[in-house]
Amino acid sequence: MGLGGKVAIVGSGVIKFGENFHQSLTDMVYEAVTLALADAKVDRAQLQAAWFGCYEPMLYGFEGNSGTFVSDPLNLFPIPVTRVAAYCATGIEAVRNASLAVASGEYDLVLAVGAEKMREVPSRGSLVAQAVNRGHPVLAKGRTAPGMFALLATRYFKEYGANEEALCAVATKNHFHGSLNPKAHFQKEITADQHLKAPKVAEPLGLFDCCPTTDGAAAVVLTRADLAPKFTDRYSVIRGIAYAVTAGYWNTQFDPSWNFTSFRATREAAKVAYAMAGISNPAREIDVAECHDCFTITEIVNYEDLGFAEPGAGWRFVQDGVTRLGGDLPVNTSGGLKSCGHPIGSSGVRMIANIHDQLIGRAGKMQVKDARMGLAHNLGGPGAVSAVAVLSQP
Amino acid sequence: MGLGGKVAIVGSGVIKFGENFHQSLTDMVYEAVTLALADAKVDRAQLQAAWFGCYEPMLYGFEGNSGTFVSDPLNLFPIPVTRVAAYCATGIEAVRNASLAVASGEYDLVLAVGAEKMREVPSRGSLVAQAVNRGHPVLAKGRTAPGMFALLATRYFKEYGANEEALCAVATKNHFHGSLNPKAHFQKEITADQHLKAPKVAEPLGLFDCCPTTDGAAAVVLTRADLAPKFTDRYSVIRGIAYAVTAGYWNTQFDPSWNFTSFRATREAAKVAYAMAGISNPAREIDVAECHDCFTITEIVNYEDLGFAEPGAGWRFVQDGVTRLGGDLPVNTSGGLKSCGHPIGSSGVRMIANIHDQLIGRAGKMQVKDARMGLAHNLGGPGAVSAVAVLSQP
Repeated sequence: MGLGGKVAIVGSGVIKFGENFHQSLTDMVYEAVTLALADAKVDRAQLQAAWFGCYEPMLYGFEGNSGTFVSDPLNLFPIPVTRVAAYCATGIEAVRNASLAVASGEYDLVLAVGAEKMREVPSRGSLVAQAVNRGHPVLAKGRTAPGMFALLATRYFKEYGANEEALCAVATKNHFHGSLNPKAHFQKEITADQHLKAPKVAEPLGLFDCCPTTDGAAAVVLTRADLAPKFTDRYSVIRGIAYAVTAGYWNTQFDPSWNFTSFRATREAAKVAYAMAGISNPAREIDVAECHDCFTITEIVNYEDLGFAEPGAGWRFVQDGVTRLGGDLPVNTSGGLKSCGHPIGSSGVRMIANIHDQLIGRAGKMQVKDARMGLAHNLGGPGAVSAVAVLSQP
Repeated sequence: MGLGGKVAIVGSGVIKFGENFHQSLTDMVYEAVTLALADAKVDRAQLQAAWFGCYEPMLYGFEGNSGTFVSDPLNLFPIPVTRVAAYCATGIEAVRNASLAVASGEYDLVLAVGAEKMREVPSRGSLVAQAVNRGHPVLAKGRTAPGMFALLATRYFKEYGANEEALCAVATKNHFHGSLNPKAHFQKEITADQHLKAPKVAEPLGLFDCCPTTDGAAAVVLTRADLAPKFTDRYSVIRGIAYAVTAGYWNTQFDPSWNFTSFRATREAAKVAYAMAGISNPAREIDVAECHDCFTITEIVNYEDLGFAEPGAGWRFVQDGVTRLGGDLPVNTSGGLKSCGHPIGSSGVRMIANIHDQLIGRAGKMQVKDARMGLAHNLGGPGAVSAVAVLSQP
């Protein structure tokens, strides 16, 4: 019973992330899906259902608020296309719901696609601006994302003796990785000096500690694991995929464990995904990971919440080079959100596509040698939601 | 394999629909879920996952844009709560995704809840107003919902010889049914004279041809059919549930069958749901139905698209009383969207809860004698999406 091991990825497509002023949301969806279908060598008429992750279509002329925005550009009629939205975990949620549907036996071949158009939005139309204007109970008081994650860094530093050099190690690593990724928004290295001298956004987070605002889309084609060899001999298997909703920053009264140095949502999602995948020692069993580095401090905390490092040890982990390409557990070899950007609905799908590439050995300059088991992780909303997917070679 | 017959409903909850100024979105969610859990005699701690249908949270202070708006008021942490959005078919989409997840074997006991806060929105903040202001390619030209469905009525009248008396028969029937439903927004009968003399909204549709703007929420508790008897001896089984996305009003170039008298989305969703349920003659096999009467003309077209009546015969069907309580195939015994209102994300869940009540024999004054097989139907967006669920006694 259950989902673990039953679903395979047989194709993926990721468009160039960046300031895609030349593309509408549906243009990006079309390109990502077309790439994924070509990769899987399947025709769109073979698809039986699809899931679409898009978080804030209201920001961009309403494009993306339902599955029609996938069906229309691709003429996928009349198959069902379900839109899901889950803050920054929207992408993995799309893959998770698609996987449940395949595991149910109702569909044999489905699509999961994530996309978000974020650059073509005026400042006063941004999510934060709109929320503030409408008197959002938290955002209107200035607790925006950089502000909230700055609190995390401050407390983490105080509790564990880390300092900005740990953030710098994440930023320089992910910019180095991004320099190897032709799909990344930013494809250039930065120096430690550039990082440390950059303008502060929310003390102690500077410009290079924050992921950029980016357009992007990504798609994967899923089938039952037992059917996958019919499509290709280069596929990966979803061993576990989980989503957790917890209290986060905005409802701390519900969460006695909340201490500003760890996210329960990630711990809970990882626990479930690892149980599905039969993983007991993630630090040893996971070979490569994409985790949610919306800010550099988040990546460090993720190491701990995902069980890669002990609580309080994540900062040494990155400063020691463990998570750099060539290290024992390379993390965000794509460049992460830091270099790829974070078009919300697409990020989780992009991460899963990147891990898929690692497992089938076509990650190019980003390739991790002998990558057999990989992980993708999103953290979202007010730190309240997280999704974790564990993929492996067949 | 597949979903049909594998999933059961063991509890439901519907709040009083109406102008719920005393309730926030989360208040409504809390009430509907609490009613459903009490009905199923399960504790919220037993739930393993949930799906939440909410279509336009941006209209109401951002409440509803992710699963946290179900988890927070009910303290459901840390289970996954997936938000789906599918225009007016959002409610059945929530139940469909929940059903796929149960059928996968990953979860044994899950929740589907739909809610929408629609009254507490200023006119300039309405979906249509915002879409028009931002230059929506279709809505900005005046093709709002009443305008689009008025075209349907006009063409239908011309093709099939019907007239406003058919619309009147739907309106008076559904207001009569609504007068029997303590949860309906409007609980009063109207006369044919009131209908025919009402102000026109979009010729030939008058005030009583249009569903009202309403707040509401509804929830159902789902489990595997083989586990249902552990919870209750009064449960219903989901025999088929399907969602279809087609071209609709806005992309008619894709749909050579589009003739303004029928919706392909409904026909496609019904075809799939009937195949899952093993239904070959819906008019004979379905005993009771809730279908999407956003406008009176829509209900008539739905009869035909759902296979209850031949193309062109739907108007006689209602004028002959077939779909009135006591008729051969009572439709919208709840009062339909016409009397219940149409809080978008909740409608499909409310319909499924109503059909569940009919099948377990607790529909009160609305009860259809010997109702063994029932159907719920949503039509959404620009006529482009439809969801159909077929439920039966065990």
